[in-house]
Amino acid sequence: MDIQEWIIFAIELIGTVAFSASGAMVGIECSMDIFGVIVLGVSTAVGGGMVRDVILGKVPSALLHPVYVIYAVLAAVLVFCIIYFRRKYLQDGFGEVYDKLMLAMDSVGLGIFSAMGVTKGISCGYIDNTFLLVFLGTMTGVGGGLLRDTMAGVAPYIFVKHIYACASIAGAWICVIIYRSYGELPAMVVSSLIVMLIRFLAAHYRWNLPRIGE
Amino acid sequence: MDIQEWIIFAIELIGTVAFSASGAMVGIECSMDIFGVIVLGVSTAVGGGMVRDVILGKVPSALLHPVYVIYAVLAAVLVFCIIYFRRKYLQDGFGEVYDKLMLAMDSVGLGIFSAMGVTKGISCGYIDNTFLLVFLGTMTGVGGGLLRDTMAGVAPYIFVKHIYACASIAGAWICVIIYRSYGELPAMVVSSLIVMLIRFLAAHYRWNLPRIGE
Amino acid sequence: MDIQEWIIFAIELIGTVAFSASGAMVGIECSMDIFGVIVLGVSTAVGGGMVRDVILGKVPSALLHPVYVIYAVLAAVLVFCIIYFRRKYLQDGFGEVYDKLMLAMDSVGLGIFSAMGVTKGISCGYIDNTFLLVFLGTMTGVGGGLLRDTMAGVAPYIFVKHIYACASIAGAWICVIIYRSYGELPAMVVSSLIVMLIRFLAAHYRWNLPRIGE
Repeated sequence: MDIQEWIIFAIELIGTVAFSASGAMVGIECSMDIFGVIVLGVSTAVGGGMVRDVILGKVPSALLHPVYVIYAVLAAVLVFCIIYFRRKYLQDGFGEVYDKLMLAMDSVGLGIFSAMGVTKGISCGYIDNTFLLVFLGTMTGVGGGLLRDTMAGVAPYIFVKHIYACASIAGAWICVIIYRSYGELPAMVVSSLIVMLIRFLAAHYRWNLPRIGE
Repeated sequence: MDIQEWIIFAIELIGTVAFSASGAMVGIECSMDIFGVIVLGVSTAVGGGMVRDVILGKVPSALLHPVYVIYAVLAAVLVFCIIYFRRKYLQDGFGEVYDKLMLAMDSVGLGIFSAMGVTKGISCGYIDNTFLLVFLGTMTGVGGGLLRDTMAGVAPYIFVKHIYACASIAGAWICVIIYRSYGELPAMVVSSLIVMLIRFLAAHYRWNLPRIGE
Repeated sequence: MDIQEWIIFAIELIGTVAFSASGAMVGIECSMDIFGVIVLGVSTAVGGGMVRDVILGKVPSALLHPVYVIYAVLAAVLVFCIIYFRRKYLQDGFGEVYDKLMLAMDSVGLGIFSAMGVTKGISCGYIDNTFLLVFLGTMTGVGGGLLRDTMAGVAPYIFVKHIYACASIAGAWICVIIYRSYGELPAMVVSSLIVMLIRFLAAHYRWNLPRIGE
């Protein structure tokens, strides 16, 4: 692997670890045992990508190359251990820390996975089908979190939080455009950062889309 | 496209719009923002078909030919806007109107999608496997609604409403039989109408299957 | 079929019937009508295997050879009828009988399906990929139950019960190891029995994995 491939691999690992940590946190919040926490972490980290690969008619790469699964397990175990041994210090104001950490982990994962969905679709030969690429990016980005929340039985983040899937769609679209002109690495970095930026701005300024009945 | 293909395309669009509207209504009922409403509408409209295509080992046609997705988005936005601007007139008796509209939209979608699942399976070369065709029809018919209700966290319509999946199975079976003798168009029209008829009769006369513990 | 194939087929049928019965019991517990009970039974019995086949890029064998579906339907109907006609005798202490039966059915299904997932993966040529095989075994074992609980809207068994997925992973791993040395039949029998043993011991001695916040 040359330097560019190493950077892309590192970015993908960061996304995997961040999503797995978000899944582990939801599992702990739901009083699951350590195995449930690991399952939820791994599902969040590789779920969106597996659905994407199955849609593309491929055996999921997470199964053929389990390195991402291993890092997801480690991240979930680490989160469990930290909270297990630190819970007495976390009594006060944990709700607030939890929300902020969740937002950070989930946004990092969302940005990176949205870009990964696009690049995977391009590597499968669909570079001209913008709609398909954006769909794959969004599916990969929001799929893991949707699986996590459905399995844990909590209200899906995607439906209740600020500008969630919109950020993923915007990121995937930007990723497609940049990829066509400048290649994979700039596309992944810029689009991931834009998704995170949108998410943080939306959370900070409490942007919300219109809804009925409140 | 000749005239028959145009009619089939029109029928498929009607089913897509009806299912998307039912998803949008559930999303609005759950106080989702407009994006959640669109996601739920599109999931309901194309979800069953995507699962069917993935089972058949194909890249979902909804992704390769996004015309159905576009109409589903338009239908969901339209439903959102109508209810958004009309809600003051909808205060009284909205529950009743909601139930009736839901029944109508869901029944139209169920009938047309059950037939579409069968015709898609036949076009993939499984015309002799009645069981597979009926399964594909039922999966396409009930899959979208099941996805919608699971994502929205409400009790799945299929398990609580009158004769839901039974109607879909009956329609798919009739569609297989008519297709073999008379071709695609009569099969789609007759089987869709039969499903809708069964659903309306079941709702009107409150047909229910036996259950335990009530 | 020679005698070994007959025994394997019989074992698979036992697993199918046991899982279908567990699904039917959850459906009855949730006051579903007989059709919902059948859908839940069949989903539990063939759901994990269908997801596994789709991941492997194959049309699900449950659709091409519906014999398992037929037995799953019969098992669900039988469970419904028994409870329907016997419910007056079941008033007292049904909760306890329900829990024990559920544990037995679910453990038998879990053990056999974990082994079936592994043998299916091996028959698809992945005998050297231990991680993939264990994943397929676990997915097949826990997938049906997870689908059942998600569709019924109850807390997934896998997250709340003793040592559930751990037993499946252990069984799948043992199945891989025995298969490589001694072939299919010993692998299926031994690994299934080990999973059941782990489950019963875990339930009897109330083994639990560590969790936070209780």
